[in-house]
Amino acid sequence: MNYRMKIQYDGTRYNGWQRQQSTDMTIQGKIEDVLSKMVEKPVEIHGAGRTDAGVHARGQVANVHLDTSMSPDEICTYLNRWLPDDIGILSVENAPQRFHSRLNAVSKRYDYRICTNPALHVFDRKYLYPFAEKPDLNTMKKAAGYLTGEHDFQGFCARKMKKSTVRKLTSVTFHELPGELCISYEGNGFLYYMVRIMTGTLLEIGTGKRSPESILTIFDTRTREQAGFTAPARGLTLIDIQY
Amino acid sequence: MNYRMKIQYDGTRYNGWQRQQSTDMTIQGKIEDVLSKMVEKPVEIHGAGRTDAGVHARGQVANVHLDTSMSPDEICTYLNRWLPDDIGILSVENAPQRFHSRLNAVSKRYDYRICTNPALHVFDRKYLYPFAEKPDLNTMKKAAGYLTGEHDFQGFCARKMKKSTVRKLTSVTFHELPGELCISYEGNGFLYYMVRIMTGTLLEIGTGKRSPESILTIFDTRTREQAGFTAPARGLTLIDIQY
Repeated sequence: MNYRMKIQYDGTRYNGWQRQQSTDMTIQGKIEDVLSKMVEKPVEIHGAGRTDAGVHARGQVANVHLDTSMSPDEICTYLNRWLPDDIGILSVENAPQRFHSRLNAVSKRYDYRICTNPALHVFDRKYLYPFAEKPDLNTMKKAAGYLTGEHDFQGFCARKMKKSTVRKLTSVTFHELPGELCISYEGNGFLYYMVRIMTGTLLEIGTGKRSPESILTIFDTRTREQAGFTAPARGLTLIDIQY
Repeated sequence: MNYRMKIQYDGTRYNGWQRQQSTDMTIQGKIEDVLSKMVEKPVEIHGAGRTDAGVHARGQVANVHLDTSMSPDEICTYLNRWLPDDIGILSVENAPQRFHSRLNAVSKRYDYRICTNPALHVFDRKYLYPFAEKPDLNTMKKAAGYLTGEHDFQGFCARKMKKSTVRKLTSVTFHELPGELCISYEGNGFLYYMVRIMTGTLLEIGTGKRSPESILTIFDTRTREQAGFTAPARGLTLIDIQY
């Protein structure tokens, strides 16, 4: 039977989503360990977004094939009972046998939260990136216009990729909240560090360190060095995945 | 000049509000240290509510007499620049010379947050008390009716007091949220551990371990042993102080 899980986590303590050989301090590893104990054999789960170390999620999706007589709700309760309190399983549902959380994903949304007044963010400070300068929204919006659409994003990727680096960025939107600027990115796929490099580049544009048109040069040259700094993991949250 | 400050803090790391001789890991101590450096002499601040170790605040109020040419906004900026990121000064305002944050307070509100589904509270887990059983709201509301009003609350106090232990509890209200039960207490003053002992007692009533009428026995006998357990500090937040 194939199951689909919706997962949220505080990524602060973890080396990201993807299981690694050297450590089980990964979200995937923690969930697989509990499921493996539950069914008494090794289990592999498939996550939709491979979030990096320190990145959070409110709507990660994963699927897993399990041989169990437990109901989806019972699996959900079992997981939440044994998982650490910084990982929460929001739901477990039956899924079609061929459903694959990553391959079937149509679009994903990531939010990057920038803290412009830390005094207002005492309680959620671990989930925002404190940024000393106040960036200019108008120039950032102009740059976001250049970013949106189908492009080769190799210049916004921290690794040289052999496979295609063409992705479609559907929208980049800005939300101003008390002491906070939140940038939402929606698209059909994101490369390694892509959201964080786009955010760093937008912040450099918003503080006058580069022009909105420099986005075009990054697309043309396809080189990471042309783009801005990598914004820290703590401000990034995987919000939602559409199928 | 007398200044009035509104303060919020995550109390997790601290030994409470009140400065102690042995340690400066108190909210009062941290703020006084920064102000003392600012005016280059010892400063004493007066907090409205002496929150215990581990208790949080969203609307603590303190006043302080300072001899400085800085504006209230400049003082606020200076404090936030040098305070740790789990303490935030929301505002600094000029206050009448005789204003005293504790003596002039008319009423205070504390919220106690109980987590009924930890999977939903991955991001604010440090500010809720995880409670395994689902308490019954109707019996708790009946008990809250007995608690409300002017009473001698010595039985809900963790210390034998020489001064009067008569307080007026204006209201006890319940808010059900996803995976959470929040109890709001409003009154003209609260004794040592009083909110946490009332919460523990209400939870024992809500889970059938004692009757709503046992509240009357606690008032009659004035003994701590008659009341319920002390709910942990982490779920408690000082919300607001009225003048």
